[in-house]
Amino acid sequence: VDIIPVIETAAVIASAIYGVLLAARKNLDIVGVFAVAFIISFGGGTLRDLALDRHPLFWIANHHYVWIVLGLSLLGAMIPSHLQKLEKYLLVPDAVGLALFTITGTAYALATDPPVNLLIAVILGVVTGTFGGVLADIICNEIPSLFREAPLYATAAFVGAWVYALLVLWAWSEELAAGAAFVTVFAIRIAAVRWNIRLPNARLG
Amino acid sequence: VDIIPVIETAAVIASAIYGVLLAARKNLDIVGVFAVAFIISFGGGTLRDLALDRHPLFWIANHHYVWIVLGLSLLGAMIPSHLQKLEKYLLVPDAVGLALFTITGTAYALATDPPVNLLIAVILGVVTGTFGGVLADIICNEIPSLFREAPLYATAAFVGAWVYALLVLWAWSEELAAGAAFVTVFAIRIAAVRWNIRLPNARLG
Amino acid sequence: VDIIPVIETAAVIASAIYGVLLAARKNLDIVGVFAVAFIISFGGGTLRDLALDRHPLFWIANHHYVWIVLGLSLLGAMIPSHLQKLEKYLLVPDAVGLALFTITGTAYALATDPPVNLLIAVILGVVTGTFGGVLADIICNEIPSLFREAPLYATAAFVGAWVYALLVLWAWSEELAAGAAFVTVFAIRIAAVRWNIRLPNARLG
Repeated sequence: VDIIPVIETAAVIASAIYGVLLAARKNLDIVGVFAVAFIISFGGGTLRDLALDRHPLFWIANHHYVWIVLGLSLLGAMIPSHLQKLEKYLLVPDAVGLALFTITGTAYALATDPPVNLLIAVILGVVTGTFGGVLADIICNEIPSLFREAPLYATAAFVGAWVYALLVLWAWSEELAAGAAFVTVFAIRIAAVRWNIRLPNARLG
Repeated sequence: VDIIPVIETAAVIASAIYGVLLAARKNLDIVGVFAVAFIISFGGGTLRDLALDRHPLFWIANHHYVWIVLGLSLLGAMIPSHLQKLEKYLLVPDAVGLALFTITGTAYALATDPPVNLLIAVILGVVTGTFGGVLADIICNEIPSLFREAPLYATAAFVGAWVYALLVLWAWSEELAAGAAFVTVFAIRIAAVRWNIRLPNARLG
Repeated sequence: VDIIPVIETAAVIASAIYGVLLAARKNLDIVGVFAVAFIISFGGGTLRDLALDRHPLFWIANHHYVWIVLGLSLLGAMIPSHLQKLEKYLLVPDAVGLALFTITGTAYALATDPPVNLLIAVILGVVTGTFGGVLADIICNEIPSLFREAPLYATAAFVGAWVYALLVLWAWSEELAAGAAFVTVFAIRIAAVRWNIRLPNARLG
């Protein structure tokens, strides 16, 4: 697992940027901004680590991740308000964080001994990718976007996790599998938002 | 612990049916339906397993449970909408899942080595029975029914968990203890909804 | 770690009193009161124990804590309603619980082997002090006060955790470090509410 730490660092940076921009919209003080960015960056991976009994948790083992989030939170608190237009770029760091964390989650789940079932690995990849945002939404008392208006959010992670898991199973290199999965998640998510693509609702409703 | 896997399988099926019917009312797509059914079926037991340090988690160790929930979610997405009247039967799978998961939670807690205190076992039984629904409510941004209009929901689980724990302590067979606990939880819950029975409020309010 | 059990017991009592008074305002029945008091008293420490892989959880290892919360819940349900004026004293047990749990959380995190990074210990102290209340707010469907109107709630815990961690690092006795940290958290929190002191908002909003 050589490329995974690189991907994880990038995932933390992307998620923290997303978290800081999101928190700034909510009129929080610096402690609140850090708390939101922390939960968005580490919530999903913490659930995965607890579920797989991986200790120390990934952000305790790599405490420079926490310093990254702290630094970006301080930086974010100093962004002048006329840069609010940055808001519309929220989508990009969110999609990058989603894609990268989904890959690390799936990779860690596949690396357990004994290995977990493929479906379980995919689910833990989706949890890693999506639950930071879900937890932040819950704490900010919003309907988690996973269950609301977000086009193909969990679905993008679900498809990408299968891509990664199957390519690794078929003996692709981790780098190529991760690249293919990243493109898959990012493209599905961005295209879904751009053209407002959705899955049909369950019909009972 | 021979009958417990049978009870657990039935609990997963009942909870997944409840989750799928509930999710269908909320106009979610298939991924959302699966997510809600997954959380309702596995949320409480996951908390219990984490609290007791039981690994792998029950749904990772028994991954056919996940396939059951996935299958029922796909099936649920194909129910035609004129069967909405099914809704009024939501109560029954919910009460069955509550009763069965409360039993498995109490049984696993009593089976730890060294054994936990009886009150702790009962609380973990209640957590196992109720927290799937609580988490799903939180994620769907509803006031958890545990804390709202639900007559004797946690209370039914609490009484049933004591019934199971005490009968096992008094050397009844697991089968009989489970049967008695099931009838207790199911009857209290159904009767409470039918005749709108509640405990008095705390008076300070 | 000799004084920590004493501090922890006091923290449980203060948090349970706060939880019972809070729950009484919400018109819950006795089971609901116990559930809210339980989550407020044990939620933060449970997250810390899971994050640090400390088992059995502190309230499973010390099951008399659960009996304390149960007893106070029963007592609370019998408070006559003309004592509602007690409400304005909610602030004090909340601040005491915040201060004491922050100290125990930081102390347990510093006592791990190998020791966690100082920033991680401080964060786990803050989580221990604040997340019981955050979880109770989420379950009662309120915006967690951590992210709303609460002046310097997490901030008080954050400063106090640094005070404790640094004083212990500088070889002060645990008793003196805990005393200094308690005064710090309690004073910041009470002063912030009394004079409505806040940190400036992040400017992007």
